[in-house]
Amino acid sequence: MTPLDPIRIVLVRPVYGGNVGSVCRAMKNMGLSRLVLVGPEDHLDLRELKAMAVHAHDLFEGRGRAETLEEAVADCGLVAATTARPGLYREHSLTPREAAPRLLEAAADTPVALVFGPEDDGLSNEDIARCSILLRIPSSPDYQSLNLAMSVMVCAYELFAAAGTYQPPSERTPEAPSAMKERLFDFWRQMLLEIGFMHEMKADHMMLGFKRAFSRGPMSIADVNILMGVVRQTLWMASQYRKYKALARPGTEP
Amino acid sequence: MTPLDPIRIVLVRPVYGGNVGSVCRAMKNMGLSRLVLVGPEDHLDLRELKAMAVHAHDLFEGRGRAETLEEAVADCGLVAATTARPGLYREHSLTPREAAPRLLEAAADTPVALVFGPEDDGLSNEDIARCSILLRIPSSPDYQSLNLAMSVMVCAYELFAAAGTYQPPSERTPEAPSAMKERLFDFWRQMLLEIGFMHEMKADHMMLGFKRAFSRGPMSIADVNILMGVVRQTLWMASQYRKYKALARPGTEP
Repeated sequence: MTPLDPIRIVLVRPVYGGNVGSVCRAMKNMGLSRLVLVGPEDHLDLRELKAMAVHAHDLFEGRGRAETLEEAVADCGLVAATTARPGLYREHSLTPREAAPRLLEAAADTPVALVFGPEDDGLSNEDIARCSILLRIPSSPDYQSLNLAMSVMVCAYELFAAAGTYQPPSERTPEAPSAMKERLFDFWRQMLLEIGFMHEMKADHMMLGFKRAFSRGPMSIADVNILMGVVRQTLWMASQYRKYKALARPGTEP
Repeated sequence: MTPLDPIRIVLVRPVYGGNVGSVCRAMKNMGLSRLVLVGPEDHLDLRELKAMAVHAHDLFEGRGRAETLEEAVADCGLVAATTARPGLYREHSLTPREAAPRLLEAAADTPVALVFGPEDDGLSNEDIARCSILLRIPSSPDYQSLNLAMSVMVCAYELFAAAGTYQPPSERTPEAPSAMKERLFDFWRQMLLEIGFMHEMKADHMMLGFKRAFSRGPMSIADVNILMGVVRQTLWMASQYRKYKALARPGTEP
């Protein structure tokens, strides 16, 4: 068991077998061993995959498979997306060097996922919304788009380098699992609607902002539980408010 | 003219066109532009090369050519070899991170070469003897041999990072001033009391937990403002609730 073992590489709908093979080799070079593929695999060129994986084909053989990104990261306390594209909520990104210590810290307590999108498009906004932090690899403005396996290499290299010198802090706050946090966000969304903080139409947009704010640092199971308590209490009061309001005699409104 | 311009990547007798193409892309991603190939080229698969280079094929088109390594680095003030193999002259190696500042420093005054050997064998002892410093990329003992283009990427990435040419996105997330956060926590405390989440007696203790949860990561002014909005809305609803409740006729409570 190494500090890197709990960190999985998740490839969302990769297109080229050669890239998947290169990813396996880059991972094994840098001490990572857990690969998860999301989506169908039938189109992958397995001959190219094997040729590029060389002595790391065992990572592909031992891969995890998932239908959706949600399923691939459900048990992960920290999920990091990678992107090269600018755009909505993509500006608050960390470099792999900045993120590596945080990923390792989380990996001391919980599975951690590093998520890479398809070669052509990258991750969708919906995929990115599922992730708690966003990584952007520094690159030249002349040509920002890295090959998929190269992106994996740079991230894995930074993790490997950080693992070599990294000392975990003694006071631990284990990250809550992704599914638990998603449940909190669902309740939070409901609460914001119930108290009239936002309208349904703008809810998805608002929630991206909240998720980001809550994901800047680690969020523990205790944090999620306490926030759930606040939400439940607020929802209870909102329902009471409505009941009393409905019962109020005309002309007696406050 | 950037600090990276005087640094050339020298590939000695590469075997696979695809790798040469991947090298071009990795170089351009990381702001390097000068490629030199040593040895014959006729065997290179130019279709694969072009496919892997994508938008960096111009680096191949503008490459330098040399018959020997000696010729390829003749004008260079500093020549760094890369190797994965241990052995003669190979033990006094630097990591790319250690070497990057030195390479950049030299590049301020003179051309600099970073030399990579063939995919199968790496650089010969004779080639390495021509170089002034030796780089070794840290890697897992389980699989030390990196793909050629991956090796170039790691070195180029370290040079790019060291050159500091990378401008982080201008929109960062500056921390909200402490006073602003304290104000939020005061309001949050009031809210938790008003919605009946906690009692005054336990409030100070509870608030310590909340503060810690909200302080794990950076909290921006925008984050504070949005959370203040939630608190205000909840406080408003709590006051409405009490007013309606006070007005309710006995026996009509929900």
